[in-house]
Amino acid sequence: MGTTPPASLTPAEARSAFRAGRSGPTAGWATGHTQANLVAVPADWAYDVLLFAQRNPKPCPVLDVTEPGETSTVLAPGADLRTDLPRYRVYRDGQLTAEPTEVTDWWREDLVAFLIGCSFTFEGALDAAGIPLRHIEQSRNVAMYRTNRPCRPAGRLHGPLVVSMRPIPAPLVDLAWRLTALLPAVHGAPVHAGDPGELGIKDLDVPDYGDAVRQLPGDIPVFWACGVTPQAALAASAPPFAITHAPGHMFITDARDADYRIA
Amino acid sequence: MGTTPPASLTPAEARSAFRAGRSGPTAGWATGHTQANLVAVPADWAYDVLLFAQRNPKPCPVLDVTEPGETSTVLAPGADLRTDLPRYRVYRDGQLTAEPTEVTDWWREDLVAFLIGCSFTFEGALDAAGIPLRHIEQSRNVAMYRTNRPCRPAGRLHGPLVVSMRPIPAPLVDLAWRLTALLPAVHGAPVHAGDPGELGIKDLDVPDYGDAVRQLPGDIPVFWACGVTPQAALAASAPPFAITHAPGHMFITDARDADYRIA
Repeated sequence: MGTTPPASLTPAEARSAFRAGRSGPTAGWATGHTQANLVAVPADWAYDVLLFAQRNPKPCPVLDVTEPGETSTVLAPGADLRTDLPRYRVYRDGQLTAEPTEVTDWWREDLVAFLIGCSFTFEGALDAAGIPLRHIEQSRNVAMYRTNRPCRPAGRLHGPLVVSMRPIPAPLVDLAWRLTALLPAVHGAPVHAGDPGELGIKDLDVPDYGDAVRQLPGDIPVFWACGVTPQAALAASAPPFAITHAPGHMFITDARDADYRIA
Repeated sequence: MGTTPPASLTPAEARSAFRAGRSGPTAGWATGHTQANLVAVPADWAYDVLLFAQRNPKPCPVLDVTEPGETSTVLAPGADLRTDLPRYRVYRDGQLTAEPTEVTDWWREDLVAFLIGCSFTFEGALDAAGIPLRHIEQSRNVAMYRTNRPCRPAGRLHGPLVVSMRPIPAPLVDLAWRLTALLPAVHGAPVHAGDPGELGIKDLDVPDYGDAVRQLPGDIPVFWACGVTPQAALAASAPPFAITHAPGHMFITDARDADYRIA
């Protein structure tokens, strides 16, 4: 791999690098390939998670669900969900207890893994249309915020909508809106553009997940529903055990972004 | 109600007519309002149905899932799922045992109801664009066929993809394709246009559900994934008990078709 820029790696090469211990946010990696959020819960919580996703499809577009104990997915044959992400989070009773780079020792036979669409998927479409991506320009993770909008609860799961924010030059906001609307499997159109206060976000410089991203003059903050939403629900709802990706540290699948474009 | 044409009824008026005992297919009723397939199964089958839907989103776009025993839905406040459809099917061990016009006596406290998007929803968009709807012109139910394409199984549920077919004048097929692609929550773009043999359909004049619909010269048969697919899975997989709508006899919700258009 050596000096190959992350953008031109194949998904298998990227996963192999993470399996070998490399870490870091995956925005801009393996361009054109679909990245996914990971949420793995004990089987007796799987219905709650799947129903929560159905009831909150913008933040939780489900791309695949594994059988209990399975560690691979149709989205990336040969991949191992326990080792092939750059960083994980392990939760016990809703408390974050570890942030390892692999979870082989934590994995359980009753875990059901959910792979959920990620907004990194549409960044290729934005970039191709000439829309600047400030967090990539600034070599930062995307900024994510808990909002004051509750998700629709499902069974034992409840929690707030989490959004990712990208500063976009005002004349390009409409184009960004239309391009991402065509990708409902990866969050679709924004939920809001403009005043962060509308979403209950007090200070854009203090994100709840990821990094603060600097706006340039003339930029408007644009907010998309975010796949970290189920993590916020796990923290609020406290299942006995869960494993997720670390925010921004996604699972890179073999699927192509174009596969999820609906028109 | 009297002589009010079904197209101009409100959803509540249509449901009230069905509750009072009126029956018949709902194509063309309460124009602009979203119609839904009903599948109700015992709670211990709910995860299988929801996962089957996630794995087969084109035929099974889930619009709502009720809590066990609940008989109403956020899609139509005040409606009663046991009485407000024009006709039902009751299954025991995968066998069709009754086709009543209400199911109050059959309903159980452990039933979870799934409301699944219906292709009638996009017929308004086709009609508005000048695309003729032959089954409505001919006062027939839409024609539906089991195909030779298996759905991706989920738990105990497996079965074939079922499609609805509309004959469309050849020069308008592309427009129909593009218009419905924008409605992924109600089956989206067609799965096929042209030779029925590609889907293993031997004779268009002998549909598996609904009525045969006559093609006019120059028409091409266009096939969309159909919300009867979960019924075919119930028949193939034989849960101990299930209630569904009768094919073509849908639940008319208060939601508007436009709500499901993604761009």
